[in-house]
Amino acid sequence: KNRGRILITCEDRPGIVAAVSEFLTDHEANIIDSSQYSTNPEGGKFFMRIEFECPGLQDRKAQLERDFKAIATNFQMEWKLFFVSELKRAAIFVSKELHCLRELLLEWENGDLVAEIPLVISNHSDAKEYVESFGIPFVHIPASKENRAQAEQQQLQLLDEYNIDFVVLARYMQILTPNFVSSFNQNIINIHHSFLPAFVGAKPYDRAFERGVKLIGATSHYVTNDLDEGPIIEQDIKRVNHRDQVEDLKKNGRIVERSVLVRAVKWHNEDRIIVHGNKTVVF
Amino acid sequence: KNRGRILITCEDRPGIVAAVSEFLTDHEANIIDSSQYSTNPEGGKFFMRIEFECPGLQDRKAQLERDFKAIATNFQMEWKLFFVSELKRAAIFVSKELHCLRELLLEWENGDLVAEIPLVISNHSDAKEYVESFGIPFVHIPASKENRAQAEQQQLQLLDEYNIDFVVLARYMQILTPNFVSSFNQNIINIHHSFLPAFVGAKPYDRAFERGVKLIGATSHYVTNDLDEGPIIEQDIKRVNHRDQVEDLKKNGRIVERSVLVRAVKWHNEDRIIVHGNKTVVF
Amino acid sequence: KNRGRILITCEDRPGIVAAVSEFLTDHEANIIDSSQYSTNPEGGKFFMRIEFECPGLQDRKAQLERDFKAIATNFQMEWKLFFVSELKRAAIFVSKELHCLRELLLEWENGDLVAEIPLVISNHSDAKEYVESFGIPFVHIPASKENRAQAEQQQLQLLDEYNIDFVVLARYMQILTPNFVSSFNQNIINIHHSFLPAFVGAKPYDRAFERGVKLIGATSHYVTNDLDEGPIIEQDIKRVNHRDQVEDLKKNGRIVERSVLVRAVKWHNEDRIIVHGNKTVVF
Amino acid sequence: KNRGRILITCEDRPGIVAAVSEFLTDHEANIIDSSQYSTNPEGGKFFMRIEFECPGLQDRKAQLERDFKAIATNFQMEWKLFFVSELKRAAIFVSKELHCLRELLLEWENGDLVAEIPLVISNHSDAKEYVESFGIPFVHIPASKENRAQAEQQQLQLLDEYNIDFVVLARYMQILTPNFVSSFNQNIINIHHSFLPAFVGAKPYDRAFERGVKLIGATSHYVTNDLDEGPIIEQDIKRVNHRDQVEDLKKNGRIVERSVLVRAVKWHNEDRIIVHGNKTVVF
Repeated sequence: KNRGRILITCEDRPGIVAAVSEFLTDHEANIIDSSQYSTNPEGGKFFMRIEFECPGLQDRKAQLERDFKAIATNFQMEWKLFFVSELKRAAIFVSKELHCLRELLLEWENGDLVAEIPLVISNHSDAKEYVESFGIPFVHIPASKENRAQAEQQQLQLLDEYNIDFVVLARYMQILTPNFVSSFNQNIINIHHSFLPAFVGAKPYDRAFERGVKLIGATSHYVTNDLDEGPIIEQDIKRVNHRDQVEDLKKNGRIVERSVLVRAVKWHNEDRIIVHGNKTVVF
Repeated sequence: KNRGRILITCEDRPGIVAAVSEFLTDHEANIIDSSQYSTNPEGGKFFMRIEFECPGLQDRKAQLERDFKAIATNFQMEWKLFFVSELKRAAIFVSKELHCLRELLLEWENGDLVAEIPLVISNHSDAKEYVESFGIPFVHIPASKENRAQAEQQQLQLLDEYNIDFVVLARYMQILTPNFVSSFNQNIINIHHSFLPAFVGAKPYDRAFERGVKLIGATSHYVTNDLDEGPIIEQDIKRVNHRDQVEDLKKNGRIVERSVLVRAVKWHNEDRIIVHGNKTVVF
Repeated sequence: KNRGRILITCEDRPGIVAAVSEFLTDHEANIIDSSQYSTNPEGGKFFMRIEFECPGLQDRKAQLERDFKAIATNFQMEWKLFFVSELKRAAIFVSKELHCLRELLLEWENGDLVAEIPLVISNHSDAKEYVESFGIPFVHIPASKENRAQAEQQQLQLLDEYNIDFVVLARYMQILTPNFVSSFNQNIINIHHSFLPAFVGAKPYDRAFERGVKLIGATSHYVTNDLDEGPIIEQDIKRVNHRDQVEDLKKNGRIVERSVLVRAVKWHNEDRIIVHGNKTVVF
Repeated sequence: KNRGRILITCEDRPGIVAAVSEFLTDHEANIIDSSQYSTNPEGGKFFMRIEFECPGLQDRKAQLERDFKAIATNFQMEWKLFFVSELKRAAIFVSKELHCLRELLLEWENGDLVAEIPLVISNHSDAKEYVESFGIPFVHIPASKENRAQAEQQQLQLLDEYNIDFVVLARYMQILTPNFVSSFNQNIINIHHSFLPAFVGAKPYDRAFERGVKLIGATSHYVTNDLDEGPIIEQDIKRVNHRDQVEDLKKNGRIVERSVLVRAVKWHNEDRIIVHGNKTVVF
C-alpha cells in the first residue's frame, strides 16, 4: 500500500501548509485528507495531520524522511511519518473484567480495528482461554502493590520481545510506576469508568449512585503519573435513572466503557491524536 | 378537566398498590398512568405516582382528600394530591444571560410548557423589554453579596403576593440564603453549567477547557444550602473538540443548559419528581 | 428465585389494577415493579406488566395460574405469567456477518444477557469455530431460495428438539416462510440495517449513501410475513458524514446493529414487550 | 475584520493544496482552518474550504479575487470567496407554526447566529407582533395553490429590495415553483419534520405514529424541484415510545426541528456547505 501519514506540531506562522503541500507535490504524493488546527494564528501552536498516497512508497520511505527533515528543521517541527502498511502492534493488559478485552478482539476480528495484537498480559488467568481461542499468546503475570517493580520488569521485557508499539489498559486495575509510564510515553491508553473529572479514583459507580447522577460515563485517556489526570482522548455517557442500582450502573457502564475505549484505540492506531500539554488534538 | 395526580412516599410493604387502586375504583376514578419504584421490597422506601381521570372531579376534591387520609395514615405515607386543572405558578429569576429565560418563554408560548408564569425577577434590567413583550410583569431587584437579606425579603414578598408555587433560577447568578431556600423547599430549580459533580462552583467552562474534556454538560437540580449539591433532576451533555475555545464551550453549553432546564421544569410542573434524601425519583 | 411477571392486555375499564393488585396481595406477593399504559381510558386497550416477589413461588406456580384465571376471565384478558427462574431458551440464526452474533455471546458471557443459548444455526459455516468455543452446538443448514421448505423443516425440528422459546435473526439473510413465522409468532426478532421505514429491503447502506443521509440506523423488529414491516421493538442511529463511503457506513452500522439487536433481545427476554397490532408496547 | 473564506470544487489532481496555500502565503494571508475532501484521489471530485486571516483585507479584496482567478482557471475550479465582515442577509418564511422562527430569532439575539435578518414573510399574520418586537419588518403575503405565481412575484421583489442572500423556510407550508427555486438556487433551506427519506410528503408525524417507530426526526435540506428530495444538510432524531400520541410526537418533534434547522442555517451562514450532485459536503 502506498498510503502514508504525517503528524506535525510547531509554532504557527505563515507558510507551513504551503511548504508541506509543495513537498508532497514534489514527491508525487497526492493529499488524501488533511486537517489542521492552530491554538492562535498569532504566536500559537500549529497542529497538522496529512494523509497522502504516494506511488512506490515502499521504495521511497528513506528518501521522504530525509527530505522532510529540511522543512521540519526550518519550521522547528516535532513530527512523525507513518506508513499505513506497517501495522502498529498493540499489547492488551487486562484484569478480571473482560468486556473491554472482548470488544477489542471483536472489532479486531471484524476487521474494524486494523492492527496487530500479538500479546495479552493479565494479573489473573480468567482471560486465558478466551484470548488463546484467537491464537493470541496470553501471559499471566501476578501483579499487586507488593511485587509491582518485579512484575513490571517482566512486562517490559515481554513488550520489548514482542516489539509492541502501544499498550491498552482494558480495565487493568493496577497502577503503573513512573518507570513503566515513561517507557511507553503517550502510548498507554487507559479506560476510566466515569466521565472525568467527575469521580477520579476508585469505585466511581458507587459514588455516582450515591450522588444520584442521571448520566454515567467513561473516559479514555493517555496514562501519566497523575492518576486519571492524563490527556483525555474520548468520553461518552449513558442515561440512567433512579431505578438503577450500583449493579445496573456497572452493567450499563460496561457498554459505554467498551465503545469509548475502542474509539480511542482506533484513533490512536490511525495516527489521529496529537498530545499537547495535558490535552489531545483528535483529527 | 377531571384529571388528578397522587404522589406517594412510604415504607414498602405488601398491599399498598391494592389499597390505592381500590380507593380510586371506589371513587369511580380510572387510572390513566401509574409508576412505582421501591428501593428494596424488603424494608425499603416505596414511591408511586398515579394519574387518574375522575368524572366530576371539581366537586369531589375535598372528599377525595378527606377519604385518602385514611389510607395515608394506615401506610404512614407522605403524599400530595394535585388537580391538573389548577395550573402551577412559576416565577423565573434571571440575571444577564437570557438564553434559559428565552427558552422557557418559547416553550410556554408554544403551549409545550403548561403553567402560569406571572412574574420574572432579575438583578439586572437586561430582560425587561423582552419579558414585558409577553405581557409578564418584570421586577428589577438589584442583588449582591452586600444587600442579599434585603433583596430576598423583597423577592419573598413578591412571590407571596403573586402566589408563586415554584421558582426557576434561569442562570440567576446569586447565591440564596438558607432562609429563602427553606421558604421554597424542593421548589427551587437551578441550572448549573456543568455535568455535576464535575466542575462544582464558578467558571465551569473555563475549567472544562483547561482539563481538555470531550463533553460539556449541564445539570438541573433542586437548590439546597450546599452549593451545586442539591438533588439532581436532569443532566445532558454535548460533544466538543479541541477546536472549541472557552467561548465556543459557552455557546454550545447554552444549548444544553436551556434544554436541560426546560425538561426539569416540565417534569416538576407535571408532578413527576419525588425527592428522596439527596436524590430524585423521576417518573 | 421467587420472582414472577405478569403481562396483561385487555379492554380498559375501571378496576383492573385494583383486581390484579388485590390478587397479588392475597397470594402474599409484593409488587416490585409495575407499568401500565392505556391507548384511551374510554374504551381503549389496556396493557400492564407487573413484576412481583412471592415467597415459596416454586411450589405455588400452579395455584397462582389457576387462581389468576378467574380475574382474567372477568376482564377478558390476554395474559401470560412468567417465572424468572425459568430461563428462556434462544436460538440464534446467523449467516456470514458475525458481529451481531458476537455481541450477543459477549453480553451472554458477561452475564448481562441472562438466558440460555443452546443452539446456533447458520446457512454458512463461518461461525462454527467461534460458536463452539463457547460450548454451544452449531448446526450448518445450507439454505437458499431453492431449498427453503426443506431447510426450514430441519430448522423447526431442531428448535423443537432444543426446546427453543424464541429465535434471534442475527443478520440471517434468508427470508422465512409464513409456515416458519407462524410457528414462532412474535418470537422471532430480526435486525434490519436501516432506520425503518427508510430503506426497506435490500442494500440499505448503498441506498443511504446514494441519498446522502447524515444519519444511518438500525431497527429491531418482530418478524411477520411482510418484509421489514413487523412491529418495531427498538431503533437507533449513528451520525455519518460526507467522508463516509458505503464501506464506512457498513462499519459504523455494525456498531448500531449490534447494540440495537441486543437491547431488543434483552427486553424480549425480560418480558418487557407486548405486541399490539403492528406496534409494540415496551415497558 | 480581516477574515476570509474560500470554497473550492474541482477535479482532484496533485498540486491543488500546494497552489492554493502558496497563493495565500504570497498574499500574506495565514491559514486559520482548512478542510478538504476527495471522493476519489484518482479522478474524483475535490472539495476544499479554507478560512484565512489577511492583514488589510478590506483594501485587497478586489486584488485577491483577480489573482485567484489564475489558479482557478488552471485547475478548472468552481469557487467562491467570502469576506466574513460582510454579513449574509437572510429572509425567513413562516406559516402558522412559529417554533422554528422563534429559535432562529433566539439564537440571533444571543449572538450565536451572526447574520442579518432584515425580513420575515408569512402567508398568515400570526407571527407579526413577535417579529416586529425584534424590530424586524414583517410582511404578510397570503399564499395558496391558487395565487402562487402572484404571491411569489411579490416575494421575489421583496427579496430583491432587501438584498437577501438566502431564504429559510421555517415551517413554511407552501410549495415553491421552479421559477422561485431557480432564483435562489442552493440558497433556500427547508426543514422537513421527518428523518428523510422516511415519510416524504405530508403528515409525517401521523404516519410515524401509524408505523410505531421508536425514533422521530427532522431533516434540513436545500430546496429543489423534487419535494423533500433536495441535498440533505443535517438530520437529527429524538427517542419516543408507545405512550406518545401524535400530539406528543409533534411536541417532541418541534424540539428536534428547531435545533436541526438552526444548525443547518449556521453552517450555511459560515460557508461550511458545498453542494455536490444531490448531496452536501459539510466542513
